[in-house]
Amino acid sequence: MRQRFKPWAKDKLLSHPEISPVNPAEWKGRWSEYFGNDGPIHLEAGTGKGRFITGMGIQNPEVNYLGMEIYDSILVTALDRIKESGISNVRIIRENAEKLSDFFEEGELDRIYLNFSDPWPKSKHEKRRLTSEFFLAQYEKVLNGKGEIHFKTDNQGLFEYSLHSMSKYGMTLKNVSLDLHKSSFENNVMTEYEEKFSEKGFRIYRLEAEFK
Amino acid sequence: MRQRFKPWAKDKLLSHPEISPVNPAEWKGRWSEYFGNDGPIHLEAGTGKGRFITGMGIQNPEVNYLGMEIYDSILVTALDRIKESGISNVRIIRENAEKLSDFFEEGELDRIYLNFSDPWPKSKHEKRRLTSEFFLAQYEKVLNGKGEIHFKTDNQGLFEYSLHSMSKYGMTLKNVSLDLHKSSFENNVMTEYEEKFSEKGFRIYRLEAEFK
Ligand SMILES: C[S@@+](CC[C@H](N)C(=O)[O-])C[C@H]1O[C@@H](n2cnc3c(N)ncnc32)[C@H](O)[C@@H]1O
Ligand SMILES: C[S@@+](CC[C@H](N)C(=O)[O-])C[C@H]1O[C@@H](n2cnc3c(N)ncnc32)[C@H](O)[C@@H]1O
Repeated sequence: MRQRFKPWAKDKLLSHPEISPVNPAEWKGRWSEYFGNDGPIHLEAGTGKGRFITGMGIQNPEVNYLGMEIYDSILVTALDRIKESGISNVRIIRENAEKLSDFFEEGELDRIYLNFSDPWPKSKHEKRRLTSEFFLAQYEKVLNGKGEIHFKTDNQGLFEYSLHSMSKYGMTLKNVSLDLHKSSFENNVMTEYEEKFSEKGFRIYRLEAEFK
Repeated sequence: MRQRFKPWAKDKLLSHPEISPVNPAEWKGRWSEYFGNDGPIHLEAGTGKGRFITGMGIQNPEVNYLGMEIYDSILVTALDRIKESGISNVRIIRENAEKLSDFFEEGELDRIYLNFSDPWPKSKHEKRRLTSEFFLAQYEKVLNGKGEIHFKTDNQGLFEYSLHSMSKYGMTLKNVSLDLHKSSFENNVMTEYEEKFSEKGFRIYRLEAEFK
């Protein structure tokens, strides 16, 4: 996500520990305590400006959402959005999804969302794709037995790759849609990228995947 | 495939045992003998008028092709096409792919092609889809360990279903293309349906799948 560098972003995030915990590793194994309820916990890896998790949080007040994003300058927009909406079930962490098990106990998460993840088209960068074997192994650890990955993208190459990677890993693909906006899928919450690319007429691809 | 009923088709097929063996079950376990060589054997289930297998047979003289089709009236066109082309590595059988193990020994086939299979969109007809669990179990039996299924279709619903069904069965999906005619896939041989639907501007979906 292209974004102007905002030197003040880090401090702003740090000054809102109620929305973005300063040391998320502290909450490992205790995220239910953090949210103050036993509801399911859904994480979006690469949450960007947080439009999706905020929309989902409003739509599903019984679910707790965590947005993970590496860039302060991007995440700070999510912070504003969550603050303005006043909801208490959407929180954000400034960390790399590579290290999920530093922040979550085995089986602590109920779902992981991947939305419009960076495609990394060159094969030498395969490991960086959020649907590579390497990341799937991370997700498998922190998701509980019935945990699912919900993935959408406009990027045909990344989606094709993910069908391969996930099936090779032994995952079952469900509710696949090769043209989401013309499908019967209900209550879709659009992400920033989704709005931008679907307006350009690109198809949106979507799947759900579960470990066996 | 809509086709005029041809009362003479059955007799015509029966009068060409060199192209369409009269009793294919007789050759079970002996198809190499039938073809007179040890080359790989590739079957197309639902071969229609045989354009694909004839084209493939010409392109790959070292491979033996068998087209399977339930309707005499359709298969008779494949017969003419093979006769005219004069090739000896393409043969056809008038049988139902449901009963593959009546005609092939375990591991006797190297590849199965499914091209533009009937979609059977109603869920009560799921078992009839050539990519249902029921058919996959048949294919697994008659394919050898490295055997693959190569599937293409214009039908979005059938392709989405097949991604689910195959991954659920534990297959690995490979070389998936969500827009075959714009992909880098080489030497594509078009089928009758492929030509018709791609001319109308429909995308062609393709995948390869292997058993684990
Ligand atoms: C293309 S943007 C999509 C943002 C948002 N999900 C959307 O759909 O509008 C991808 C985002 O993922 C973030 N990202 C990429 N790799 C990440 C990782 N390993 N951990 C956390 N965030 C990551 C990027 O910084 C970027 O903001
Ligand atoms: C839609 S047509 C496609 C024909 C050809 N493959 C093409 O791509 O042009 C499907 C064909 O599969 C045949 N078929 C359907 N189910 C079959 C089965 N269980 N066994 C053999 N053939 C079958 C039908 O009779 C029909 O000719």
